[in-house]
Amino acid sequence: MASTIIFGAGFLGRRLARDLPDAVLSTADITDGPAVLAAIRQTHADAVVNAAGKTGRPNVDWCESHQPETYRVNVIGALTVADACAEAGAYLLHLGSGCIFYGPSPSPGGWLESDYANPAAFYSRTKYAADLVLSRLPNVGVARLRMPIDSAPHERNLITKLARYSQVIDVENSVTVVDDFVQAVARLLQARADGIFHVVNPGVMRHRDLLGLYRDMVDPTHVCSLIPEDELITRRLAVKVRSNCLLASPRLTELGIELRPIGAALADTMRQYAAALRR
Amino acid sequence: MASTIIFGAGFLGRRLARDLPDAVLSTADITDGPAVLAAIRQTHADAVVNAAGKTGRPNVDWCESHQPETYRVNVIGALTVADACAEAGAYLLHLGSGCIFYGPSPSPGGWLESDYANPAAFYSRTKYAADLVLSRLPNVGVARLRMPIDSAPHERNLITKLARYSQVIDVENSVTVVDDFVQAVARLLQARADGIFHVVNPGVMRHRDLLGLYRDMVDPTHVCSLIPEDELITRRLAVKVRSNCLLASPRLTELGIELRPIGAALADTMRQYAAALRR
Repeated sequence: MASTIIFGAGFLGRRLARDLPDAVLSTADITDGPAVLAAIRQTHADAVVNAAGKTGRPNVDWCESHQPETYRVNVIGALTVADACAEAGAYLLHLGSGCIFYGPSPSPGGWLESDYANPAAFYSRTKYAADLVLSRLPNVGVARLRMPIDSAPHERNLITKLARYSQVIDVENSVTVVDDFVQAVARLLQARADGIFHVVNPGVMRHRDLLGLYRDMVDPTHVCSLIPEDELITRRLAVKVRSNCLLASPRLTELGIELRPIGAALADTMRQYAAALRR
Repeated sequence: MASTIIFGAGFLGRRLARDLPDAVLSTADITDGPAVLAAIRQTHADAVVNAAGKTGRPNVDWCESHQPETYRVNVIGALTVADACAEAGAYLLHLGSGCIFYGPSPSPGGWLESDYANPAAFYSRTKYAADLVLSRLPNVGVARLRMPIDSAPHERNLITKLARYSQVIDVENSVTVVDDFVQAVARLLQARADGIFHVVNPGVMRHRDLLGLYRDMVDPTHVCSLIPEDELITRRLAVKVRSNCLLASPRLTELGIELRPIGAALADTMRQYAAALRR
């Protein structure tokens, strides 16, 4: 008997299903309410993770040209899962995105869970639309992450993504190391925590920091030029401006959940990434 | 053969169905995609108005305690209608709310269509969530209105609503006179206008202005005390703080659509309201 059911068999869904205790993965279509409810009831799950979402392939610009596919899953689907969870009496932890904030935060120290967002990209708009509703529902939590960094190569892993580009923007960001994310999700599930949580590693990461470690540990021959943020659009390397921002996590801290500082977590993750490539 | 189908047989839906040329009213459940699509196809409509929405009875606080009913219609339903319109190749004009903005606008002169909102009430959150998505879809317009004022008594009419309260907050607002709104909707439908439009009468209305006219024209014995905005919550007259704000409508102006200034429109409407009561 599973205690947690995870919807969305993507990068994070599979990872959570592997690493969370008593978890099963469902491939049910989250826009199909009766199917979602049946899956929850069949597994006798009392907690649900919604890891299903359209993020776009090869990148988030896909969502600009595939709007219905994006809002169906990211908005209608997310709320349909919430509906089914309320019906089944199960706690829901929804995976949100921190990529709904653009630029400097209203107060110093990063964007707060309680801040209103300013999403530009269509993807960001759909993620934020769901959060506006989910964050006010009882027995529902939203774990927002940013630019997942993982120890194994994967097209969704920021290390793999950045290493593929010959030009990278020179910006500062809050990011999420997946190992730390999985542990935080386990704690949020235990706590049945309501409302929004910014699940990012404390500290600031520059893309150049990540690429420096990549050269040091993975590929000394890797070359990449840093370009100013606005050139991403003017050079037609992207359709829509990307979210770059720093998040604060006071609500996670209140629960006593602390991710590793990004410097140490990134170095450790890159070491494992290099080892995984050599295997 | 109707050219416009209107979903939502409420206050505004019925009014639009009565006054728009070649319009029919549908009572289809807007969360039922196939039913919405069938209704559009059966009527051969090439334009759709989504006037279905949960606003709460007796007031918007209802939405705080009826969250699933509210987000199902205001978010899932609104996007389901958009989906059906895309499928049918029909233009969609969705009725949005200006009650998603709270307090002073970022730039002087009122909140712009392009401004990010700061919704507090659950109702406001659901309306804004839909707008975040709908405002980026091709062949979809969003007509935001505020506190409709109409020439006939009705529980949704701000005149009827305010006249019932013995205590009213002393605030300034942008408001929408329904006669003017219907004409603006007709123009937006003709233009197949995309994106957000703030359909409010130019100028500022104080609740006391409306109640002054009410005393002058409708009921000289009417008494009501004005209270500061914050006392609405501290006196437990409401559960959630209300949106009070001024909207600017530059996108409507660009299309050459001009509503009457609120002073003249309000006086004219109150005169008709008084006449309707005497009938």
